[in-house]
Amino acid sequence: MSEIAVIVLAAGQGTRMKSRRAKVLHEVCGVAMLEHVLQTAETLSPSRLAVVVGRDADEVQKRYADRAEFVLQAEQRGTGHAARVALAALPELSGDVLILYGDTPLLRPETIERMCAAKRERAADLLLLSAHAPTIPGILVRDAEGRLERIVESQDATPRELAIPERNTGVYLVSAKLLREGVESLAPHNAQGELYLTDVVGHAVRHGFRVETMLVEDAEECLGVNTRRELAAASRVLRRRIVERLMDEGVTFVDPDAVYIDAAVRIGRDSVIEPGVVITGRSRLGEGCHIKAGCVIEDSRIGNDVTIGPSAHLRPGNELASKVKVGNFVELKNSKLGEGTKAAHLGYIGDADVGAHVNFSCGAIVVNYDGYKKTRSTIGDHAFVGCNANLVSPVEIAPHAFIAAGSTITKSVPTDALAIARDRQRNIDGWVARKEGRAPARAPRPDAGAEAREMATVVQAEIAPATGRRRRRRPPPGRRR
Amino acid sequence: MSEIAVIVLAAGQGTRMKSRRAKVLHEVCGVAMLEHVLQTAETLSPSRLAVVVGRDADEVQKRYADRAEFVLQAEQRGTGHAARVALAALPELSGDVLILYGDTPLLRPETIERMCAAKRERAADLLLLSAHAPTIPGILVRDAEGRLERIVESQDATPRELAIPERNTGVYLVSAKLLREGVESLAPHNAQGELYLTDVVGHAVRHGFRVETMLVEDAEECLGVNTRRELAAASRVLRRRIVERLMDEGVTFVDPDAVYIDAAVRIGRDSVIEPGVVITGRSRLGEGCHIKAGCVIEDSRIGNDVTIGPSAHLRPGNELASKVKVGNFVELKNSKLGEGTKAAHLGYIGDADVGAHVNFSCGAIVVNYDGYKKTRSTIGDHAFVGCNANLVSPVEIAPHAFIAAGSTITKSVPTDALAIARDRQRNIDGWVARKEGRAPARAPRPDAGAEAREMATVVQAEIAPATGRRRRRRPPPGRRR
Amino acid sequence: MSEIAVIVLAAGQGTRMKSRRAKVLHEVCGVAMLEHVLQTAETLSPSRLAVVVGRDADEVQKRYADRAEFVLQAEQRGTGHAARVALAALPELSGDVLILYGDTPLLRPETIERMCAAKRERAADLLLLSAHAPTIPGILVRDAEGRLERIVESQDATPRELAIPERNTGVYLVSAKLLREGVESLAPHNAQGELYLTDVVGHAVRHGFRVETMLVEDAEECLGVNTRRELAAASRVLRRRIVERLMDEGVTFVDPDAVYIDAAVRIGRDSVIEPGVVITGRSRLGEGCHIKAGCVIEDSRIGNDVTIGPSAHLRPGNELASKVKVGNFVELKNSKLGEGTKAAHLGYIGDADVGAHVNFSCGAIVVNYDGYKKTRSTIGDHAFVGCNANLVSPVEIAPHAFIAAGSTITKSVPTDALAIARDRQRNIDGWVARKEGRAPARAPRPDAGAEAREMATVVQAEIAPATGRRRRRRPPPGRRR
Repeated sequence: MSEIAVIVLAAGQGTRMKSRRAKVLHEVCGVAMLEHVLQTAETLSPSRLAVVVGRDADEVQKRYADRAEFVLQAEQRGTGHAARVALAALPELSGDVLILYGDTPLLRPETIERMCAAKRERAADLLLLSAHAPTIPGILVRDAEGRLERIVESQDATPRELAIPERNTGVYLVSAKLLREGVESLAPHNAQGELYLTDVVGHAVRHGFRVETMLVEDAEECLGVNTRRELAAASRVLRRRIVERLMDEGVTFVDPDAVYIDAAVRIGRDSVIEPGVVITGRSRLGEGCHIKAGCVIEDSRIGNDVTIGPSAHLRPGNELASKVKVGNFVELKNSKLGEGTKAAHLGYIGDADVGAHVNFSCGAIVVNYDGYKKTRSTIGDHAFVGCNANLVSPVEIAPHAFIAAGSTITKSVPTDALAIARDRQRNIDGWVARKEGRAPARAPRPDAGAEAREMATVVQAEIAPATGRRRRRRPPPGRRR
Repeated sequence: MSEIAVIVLAAGQGTRMKSRRAKVLHEVCGVAMLEHVLQTAETLSPSRLAVVVGRDADEVQKRYADRAEFVLQAEQRGTGHAARVALAALPELSGDVLILYGDTPLLRPETIERMCAAKRERAADLLLLSAHAPTIPGILVRDAEGRLERIVESQDATPRELAIPERNTGVYLVSAKLLREGVESLAPHNAQGELYLTDVVGHAVRHGFRVETMLVEDAEECLGVNTRRELAAASRVLRRRIVERLMDEGVTFVDPDAVYIDAAVRIGRDSVIEPGVVITGRSRLGEGCHIKAGCVIEDSRIGNDVTIGPSAHLRPGNELASKVKVGNFVELKNSKLGEGTKAAHLGYIGDADVGAHVNFSCGAIVVNYDGYKKTRSTIGDHAFVGCNANLVSPVEIAPHAFIAAGSTITKSVPTDALAIARDRQRNIDGWVARKEGRAPARAPRPDAGAEAREMATVVQAEIAPATGRRRRRRPPPGRRR
Repeated sequence: MSEIAVIVLAAGQGTRMKSRRAKVLHEVCGVAMLEHVLQTAETLSPSRLAVVVGRDADEVQKRYADRAEFVLQAEQRGTGHAARVALAALPELSGDVLILYGDTPLLRPETIERMCAAKRERAADLLLLSAHAPTIPGILVRDAEGRLERIVESQDATPRELAIPERNTGVYLVSAKLLREGVESLAPHNAQGELYLTDVVGHAVRHGFRVETMLVEDAEECLGVNTRRELAAASRVLRRRIVERLMDEGVTFVDPDAVYIDAAVRIGRDSVIEPGVVITGRSRLGEGCHIKAGCVIEDSRIGNDVTIGPSAHLRPGNELASKVKVGNFVELKNSKLGEGTKAAHLGYIGDADVGAHVNFSCGAIVVNYDGYKKTRSTIGDHAFVGCNANLVSPVEIAPHAFIAAGSTITKSVPTDALAIARDRQRNIDGWVARKEGRAPARAPRPDAGAEAREMATVVQAEIAPATGRRRRRRPPPGRRR
């Protein structure tokens, strides 16, 4: 393949986004628009990859400094001017140049490959990517032989020209020589001195260069994003693409329109993804998994036959072995869970290495933060962590250990040990009736009098408001809020 | 502007709703349909605002007694009869009358303003709002000069008339004088003695009044709701309007079709709203907020750069300062959170005044209800509330206080103090092995024998079922449920 | 009605599903596709109900052994061969035979009833169900009198034939005699020796049988599922049907496209179902319920005026009396809740019998699993269960009992008693300041010195890391993570 350089035009102001952020950094399916374009460009292994930036140059440049070289277009004087600035910064360029746009994130690598092949096969000097997209203003007018004659802006077009559906996407694959000659020839269009890259096509036609066009099959690839509405539209298109690919690979989606899966996510076949699920980053799910409604899974690796949710949240960095079960309102973060381990109900496992066949009961927490720093804990195979228990990290729970419900564990627990850290239960008979100023429904046991009196003192101090105010008494029927 | 009165027809039976509730009280985007219509009417500052009610008169009247005057249409004898009843109750009416409908919630104030201007400019006696909406039965038939000739019901129309797309929405702006004369002239259409307001238009045309029409640009504004399906359709239209307005103002929606935001909500630019989010009432969100998937935010005020969710629930009455972070499965209610405060995991903050830079750990709860009454608590700046801690209101946690995990706090905690309310941890070696009838994986420490024996007694009482039944022993492999 | 047998063709390979599972076991709205077809067939009370299975025969047969008889089509030689195999297994068949497909789950019972009536009325030997569905390849070509002449596959059709919208769904109601004669007459179409059931129609026409067609009104009923995309499409259609029926019955859906309700669910009128809600199995909801966003309700019975959610999860087997309130992040499983009982915040009630007007506070848990077995608990009327309390099953909480916050309850609690199981609170003054190496913001109380020193020892052991490492000290400003 002949040498190709890529110039990405990304200097547009993006004022219609109404954003403090550079337009090309707005995200589509979890990835900045410019990142999509760079990924596509990189599939060509280009000799140079230059991004023309304007407003917000710093923000963009800082983020992608190691991915591309940046050229500043200080004045916003149109696409032709941007290309001229880029070429001035790349004086030695030869071979072909591909012009892409930072706000056109949906163009597929396959389309660009087809462009390369088409340019080569047809020995074109300039290959223009066209689309059947009547909302694009650049109309492709052809001569009697069907060759491109000129590009007319819809505002200057005749009704007959307006009826032509084929439009100019602005994506060009062009020899560096022609491009350089073309941008030098550009003349301003208006008082603002704007130069349009489109005019390079006119120049090429007029000067006898071989200009060819290639129609993109799916016009959605050329959707440009100038507003939040268009950003949402682009997200919808990309989401559908991702989900359709996964369906073709054998994943079931109850409602393909109601899942939000980043492009780099991989899911094994026969997994079922319910509605309202978000899976981000480079998450990997095995086969036969069932992700129930409302789960959010970020950058985690999940084995086969794992059940998650509904409404579970995996923050980044988890590794779940096969047959793990994570239930409702459970949060995992940066933790490993061994095969068959269950965290089936409300709870949080943060920064922990959990073995196999562990039962993590409802309300149990791995307390990974003490207000000063974060630490990790280890929980061995077959351990049982009781309800509302706290494992205060760093702590080591050995295999087959049993943590009693309601215990706050700060020291390690050996194998087979029961760890318990809670007070004994005391029942204070008649307390509620006395509090409510009525006869108790059941008399205190005769021998319980002393204990009850004693405990009442203890409890009063505990239960009574710290302010010393008395509670309003009222009869019991219903304890309505 | 000349004086305008508004009559809202809201007496329809609504039987197709199959509801115990008055039809006009069913909600579209969190607001009753009649409320939408009243809000629109109120933008005119009308001299009188009368609502004609029938069935469920009491329920409707009670709710809006301070917003409008109510006229009872005891018998359901059609729109013409309803207008006649209204005029009889408003004998002194002069100027213009605007006729609206309680089940047409999408009509925009802008459209009514345009109607007022059009009536004035064209010196009309009656201005009829028309729409391109072929499902509406009232067909506008015009004469050769294009002037309205008559309105034909689709059931009585010729095929040629049926092909006319312009229909009568039933919304009129009409001089009180003409309206009064018109409704008096109405004759019953059928055995039920129903009178139709449409016939006032015929009367006006026949008697040489100046009748003009104005086409509404967006026919969806005139969607009438008679069924739950139409209610859902109206909700969809209004939802899209709200979200599109917010997108135009600089808010990003990952999926604009999957968010549910009430009309009065305000959101600052560069905020990102993920799918499945519900924001209700008069909530205000600042700039740069990130509301993650599945959050519900009711009537709360939220500063800039606040992160919420996924799956957090803000019940009404919260105020969050900037840079607050509320994480998954957290509930807030009627609480203030100072700048930078975090409640990042499962927990509930109810009726609390929380300072800045507080860390509210997983499972921690402000216990605002003791079964009898609700009270408030205060938590000072930089306080740290440990996991699964209970702060029993009313209680005051001073700045820089530290609440140990698993503690139930009933008394105030001074600045810089550690508060702890939990028992020490004891490990009972070999307990699990004994329970499971096998040799312990690790021998008890020699010196631990006595302690272990003693604790075993304690623990047995705690762990054993209160019923005294023995637990089934079984070998340990996996503790499967 | 004359005797009818049903043959369901379900032997297709389903390779495009890319699944380990039999295609007809993939689910549409919570129910396997074959189950939908069997349910429809069963409405006819057929004399025989035979399912032709191929690949995955065992899996399918095991699941529906009591619902149908199974015929193995060992080789995949087409629909005609499958019917031939079925008839060979049912030698005594008389009357009519209905041919259905295991991958066509949307066909309505009403349509089949209409087919039966049409066949009878028109004295047909074979009634073919047709549809306006241009994607189906079998084109119905009619003669000048409009009678079916032949069925042309689209690949063999002329352009004029291709324009015919009426297609063969493959659903036939045919006399057993004709069917038997027809399938015996079939000749292979290709080298693989495949036989097509369509050719029976040709046979019938050629031999003077009376062949009639009936057009299905809603072509979606005939959607066949061969891919995950088609599975999703079928789910969408059925979902819409279910929700539209419920809307017609008086249920409000904020967004009918964003709820997932199984076909057997029943919901009373004036209930409101918010977006993202999943209701499965045979759940029953009363009137006036409000199911807020993001709830999942599985196989549960719910009374009138119950409020659930947002984001609550009812696992199977719950019974909720009227006016129950279940709030955010609450899980219920196999439990009964009496009238007016509230579990309004994070918590889990598993395997419990809860009385009326109970208050189940935030973080409270019925601990139904001890690592070895599951047990039930009882909670009496008007009981109050405090925050983060654990009720360790089996335990009985009597009416009007009060469980203090943070208590782990292992023994029964009598009526009117307060049960408390937690340690007293101790404040260690200046602990945070000392920990952070700075002067305490407030001096310890003079008389608190001894206590503080003593407690510091206790607490140090509790709070300090078990590894003995010292914590990094750092100044306090903000305790950032």
